[in-house]
Amino acid sequence: MKSLKFECRLKSRVNVLRSIQSKHRFQHHCLASENSNVARTNLTPSQHVLDIWHKAEAVCFDVDCTVTVNDSLDLLAEYMGVGKEVENLTKKAMDGTLSLGQALEERLKLINCKPKDIKSFLAANPPQSRFAKGIVSLVTRLQERDVTVYLISGGFRELTLPIAEQLGIPRQQVFANRMLWQWDDETLEPSRLVGFDISEPTARNQGKPQAIAKIREAHTYSSVVMIGDGITDLEAVQVSGGADLFIGYGGVQRRAAVEKDADWYVMDFAELEAAMKCYQVAMIGSGAWACAAARMVAQNALENTSGMFDTKVKMWVYEENYEGRKLTEIINERHENPKYLPGVSLPENLVAMPDLLEVTEGADLLIFCSPHQFVRGVLKQLAGKVKKGAVAISLIKGMRVRVDGPQLISQMVERMLGIDCSVLMGANIAEGIAKEELSEAVIGYDNLDNAYVFEKVFQRPYFEVKLIPDGPGAEMCGTLKNIVALAAGFVDGLGYGPNSKAAVMRQGLSEMMNFSTRLYPSIRSETFLESCGMADLIATCYGGRNRKVAVEYASSWQAGAPQTFDALEASLLNGQKLQGVMTSDEVQEILRMKGWEQDYPLFTTINRIIHSQLDPSYVVKYKEGAGINISLHADPTVLKSGDTPPKGPRLAPLNTF
Amino acid sequence: MKSLKFECRLKSRVNVLRSIQSKHRFQHHCLASENSNVARTNLTPSQHVLDIWHKAEAVCFDVDCTVTVNDSLDLLAEYMGVGKEVENLTKKAMDGTLSLGQALEERLKLINCKPKDIKSFLAANPPQSRFAKGIVSLVTRLQERDVTVYLISGGFRELTLPIAEQLGIPRQQVFANRMLWQWDDETLEPSRLVGFDISEPTARNQGKPQAIAKIREAHTYSSVVMIGDGITDLEAVQVSGGADLFIGYGGVQRRAAVEKDADWYVMDFAELEAAMKCYQVAMIGSGAWACAAARMVAQNALENTSGMFDTKVKMWVYEENYEGRKLTEIINERHENPKYLPGVSLPENLVAMPDLLEVTEGADLLIFCSPHQFVRGVLKQLAGKVKKGAVAISLIKGMRVRVDGPQLISQMVERMLGIDCSVLMGANIAEGIAKEELSEAVIGYDNLDNAYVFEKVFQRPYFEVKLIPDGPGAEMCGTLKNIVALAAGFVDGLGYGPNSKAAVMRQGLSEMMNFSTRLYPSIRSETFLESCGMADLIATCYGGRNRKVAVEYASSWQAGAPQTFDALEASLLNGQKLQGVMTSDEVQEILRMKGWEQDYPLFTTINRIIHSQLDPSYVVKYKEGAGINISLHADPTVLKSGDTPPKGPRLAPLNTF
Repeated sequence: MKSLKFECRLKSRVNVLRSIQSKHRFQHHCLASENSNVARTNLTPSQHVLDIWHKAEAVCFDVDCTVTVNDSLDLLAEYMGVGKEVENLTKKAMDGTLSLGQALEERLKLINCKPKDIKSFLAANPPQSRFAKGIVSLVTRLQERDVTVYLISGGFRELTLPIAEQLGIPRQQVFANRMLWQWDDETLEPSRLVGFDISEPTARNQGKPQAIAKIREAHTYSSVVMIGDGITDLEAVQVSGGADLFIGYGGVQRRAAVEKDADWYVMDFAELEAAMKCYQVAMIGSGAWACAAARMVAQNALENTSGMFDTKVKMWVYEENYEGRKLTEIINERHENPKYLPGVSLPENLVAMPDLLEVTEGADLLIFCSPHQFVRGVLKQLAGKVKKGAVAISLIKGMRVRVDGPQLISQMVERMLGIDCSVLMGANIAEGIAKEELSEAVIGYDNLDNAYVFEKVFQRPYFEVKLIPDGPGAEMCGTLKNIVALAAGFVDGLGYGPNSKAAVMRQGLSEMMNFSTRLYPSIRSETFLESCGMADLIATCYGGRNRKVAVEYASSWQAGAPQTFDALEASLLNGQKLQGVMTSDEVQEILRMKGWEQDYPLFTTINRIIHSQLDPSYVVKYKEGAGINISLHADPTVLKSGDTPPKGPRLAPLNTF
Repeated sequence: MKSLKFECRLKSRVNVLRSIQSKHRFQHHCLASENSNVARTNLTPSQHVLDIWHKAEAVCFDVDCTVTVNDSLDLLAEYMGVGKEVENLTKKAMDGTLSLGQALEERLKLINCKPKDIKSFLAANPPQSRFAKGIVSLVTRLQERDVTVYLISGGFRELTLPIAEQLGIPRQQVFANRMLWQWDDETLEPSRLVGFDISEPTARNQGKPQAIAKIREAHTYSSVVMIGDGITDLEAVQVSGGADLFIGYGGVQRRAAVEKDADWYVMDFAELEAAMKCYQVAMIGSGAWACAAARMVAQNALENTSGMFDTKVKMWVYEENYEGRKLTEIINERHENPKYLPGVSLPENLVAMPDLLEVTEGADLLIFCSPHQFVRGVLKQLAGKVKKGAVAISLIKGMRVRVDGPQLISQMVERMLGIDCSVLMGANIAEGIAKEELSEAVIGYDNLDNAYVFEKVFQRPYFEVKLIPDGPGAEMCGTLKNIVALAAGFVDGLGYGPNSKAAVMRQGLSEMMNFSTRLYPSIRSETFLESCGMADLIATCYGGRNRKVAVEYASSWQAGAPQTFDALEASLLNGQKLQGVMTSDEVQEILRMKGWEQDYPLFTTINRIIHSQLDPSYVVKYKEGAGINISLHADPTVLKSGDTPPKGPRLAPLNTF
């Protein structure tokens, strides 16, 4: 997608050259415009144009004859009784006799109004009486999508602000010329209009691209669109640093020169509104977290009145029988997933389906949230079958260990489907989200445009989403914290206090950071302070199921009746696999392959405890635990439930260490 | 203290020049040495010399005639029956006819031994039969103090390693020459001695300072001492990059040239042992944390067999009556502080005293751990009365707000007493430490030498201490986390889940970092990932009393019977003040003064909740809470217990936000 934008920017550069070559093009075209009828091909937008329109982060509107059906200054002149004179002057400007600035200056002199005249003029001609057809609806829908709307007018700020106010556009998003007033000896007020401030970009030739350049300096918009009826609006894409796309509007004034060179020419704003992107969203997975996430997605799809999302959100459910019936049927009837997220009502626009390809057919946004051991199978089925232009996000925590190194889930999606894949990670225990308690997450992205869309998919009043340009960092955090959660569970299960738990968690975060940046040197250390890092670690070490099972494990050892993780998963997790155990094994395999085990004493000790090679109390003596030569001390085979665990090295009682 | 070291280094530089000027000094002095009797002034060490000896982090010993009563190579020659010949050769070396390297080479040729000869020689002459008087005890005591001991020998590694092993010195701490062997056609083993490796620093002239330079490259020792009997040992301080101090040893061979130029000359290692620093430690404070910390300090003072600490540790107790008797008397009788840390036995060498000046008299190490509102009064009493050279550490969490900006407790100590003050901060809930559960802390230092000493004061098998060069960062962490703990308590008291708590804690840590680095730009962001940062935050947000009282506060509001913090402190804290409330008020005063309130929405909302200006449920809507114009919505006066709280703005029910 980046390449399209680049292509479009390139085009702008070419246009700059074109513009320089034909210096007097402006006047010439303006004169020729009204009567000619040029053959057109840009009434239907190309895919390039549509792509930019879909991902525009800022849209700038010209005001006179675009937002409003008339020119405010002409109207004011009429109101002041000098309509005819100003009209003649405008004609002179069109002849090329006067420059833009001179013409404006002359018109102001003729109009010669006082502040009170402007006020009464505005009262007599309120903006709502002059709006072009469809503009209010278009601006509203753009704003609902968090697209920032600007007004860039060659007219005056004093006449434009009331229009902006009606459209809900803040003052700082209005660019126009400012009148200059002087103190009037008679009124003893600054009521003498003496001209206008020539330092505003709109006061100069090529003022609109200059205004847009100012906007771009202050923000990081990746795409900016200019919409207007005139040649000065078209200039927005003809000068470097301006807009990425120019849409000509002919609903009030149809000008041939503009129509000829516009990237897209519309006669009605309804065309633009209809062409706004409507994303189809597919959730792949239906566990507790998938259901809690899909619930937010479906809520957003329904509530987003901008039409950005298809209200129907499809969710792939691995079909199984529950209480004698198909799980998909139960979900669609009861609007609840009684097996994995019981007691939580799901929106009616969330539809459960057992056929993976039916779910993803036509989907623009793919959300992966299946158990991580099934992802590869899912991706194999999807390979070559996703919609062109579709993008993905992964909510899955885990990694894949291969001979040539580890692979993140997002990397697997990108490689197997050939599409961009962001990640959403954070302190997100499903039950809390389902209860709509305050939660936070980050979207780790590579492509910012896609991240913006996913932000709108997930952001809820109770669910704060932050974008960070570190997908691998966020994903590693989400993955590795489950290992540390086991340690936290051991600490809790053995009855140690908060100092010990905090110490183990700190060491855990430290090993997470070190391991992640060693595998992926681009990972940023700030990421570990975000919701996906320390916050998720905290939530998981106090509230998650990895901790819960680890508590039981440690207690069972302490009580002298040790259980295995397999047995505990079966009895406590409804048969679901414990993520932390799988991840610990995956990470340990990497550590072994690379000869790094001793550099990660907590990770190593946890893995040894999991496999009953060490007593759980080693969690608070992890350096010692990692240093023991296991083969000399304990049987490395994994215990079956009911077995007596091999005795680890003799442990000193806690208070003597 | 740094300046002394600098002076001493300067002296080394001067010596380098001196050494270069008298090129042939080495041979000359060696010949002159044995019989002359120079007038001496360095048999008693100066204070400068003692200071360096006290803070030495590495001590390097020459081996032949220093550690052992003879020269191993001479002894080997004798053993091989060529003692006389080697003796003659040594004389030739002393004449200046042969270089150091040539002499060594020639002696090896004469000795002409096989590997098996070396083995049988070593068996016949075990190191323990040849140790100089007092060396084993001295080395042991140095090692007990974590001073790293090196052997730097002009002889051979093969003969030195058994000596090192007996002294518990690891191989990597031995510098000596390595023999070179070749394959012997007859034995078919590498048993032919052909010379020695000239790439070892000790194989060259000025080899000892070169070996020390190598050591210093690999470590960050601030002080290194060389001890030996010969001129090559003295060179260690005569060449830049070498040792900071040279102590001549004359117990085996008394050489006048060495005696003349040594910084300190001893005839018996017992002199060095006797001159080791014995620190007197004073604990100022006797609350729960002070008692738990003093318990560790007293344990260390007793158990450190190096004599580094006076075993008697004095603790200042603000005298009060407890069950009709003086608290100090009860503590000294029962070895327990029943009022502030009941049920925890204190070591008998910890002595409670009511007189502050009696406690600090003669103390080298002052540990401040009183309630932070009393520190100023304590420091006023101590000003001008602490021992010269004494240094301090603060365990106190809090800050002082003054018109000209905030002041940390450590800064107050430094300013009012004129001494260096480190801080010890970490996830250290007193009860957990008293139970000897695994805990961690950092010492934030400005002066590394002092931090090393305090590390030995506090480090316990269950209490991991890490040194970080960021005192202000550690102290700000320890101080600010108590505010966040209140927020955590509100979240818990209102029954929100782990996602919300993690989100609030993450925001808290983020505001802590931002506020700290804004006040003190030198603060390092890594500090917030240490035990004093995220770990302490976690422990305090789950286990501390700030959280506990905040839980009660929020529950009381939720139950419709709101209490004030004053009332809760009285009923829950035995009348002690809640640190978080005080710190929140202090920080808020700074935020108000600087106009920063809106930049710290969580801090601001917490402060408003504390003062009953907002309902506690605003803790999960802190942005909104900080944005409300309080004066318009609620009575800003603090509630008395039993009052009905003013209603804040109408709150939406939780699940609709």
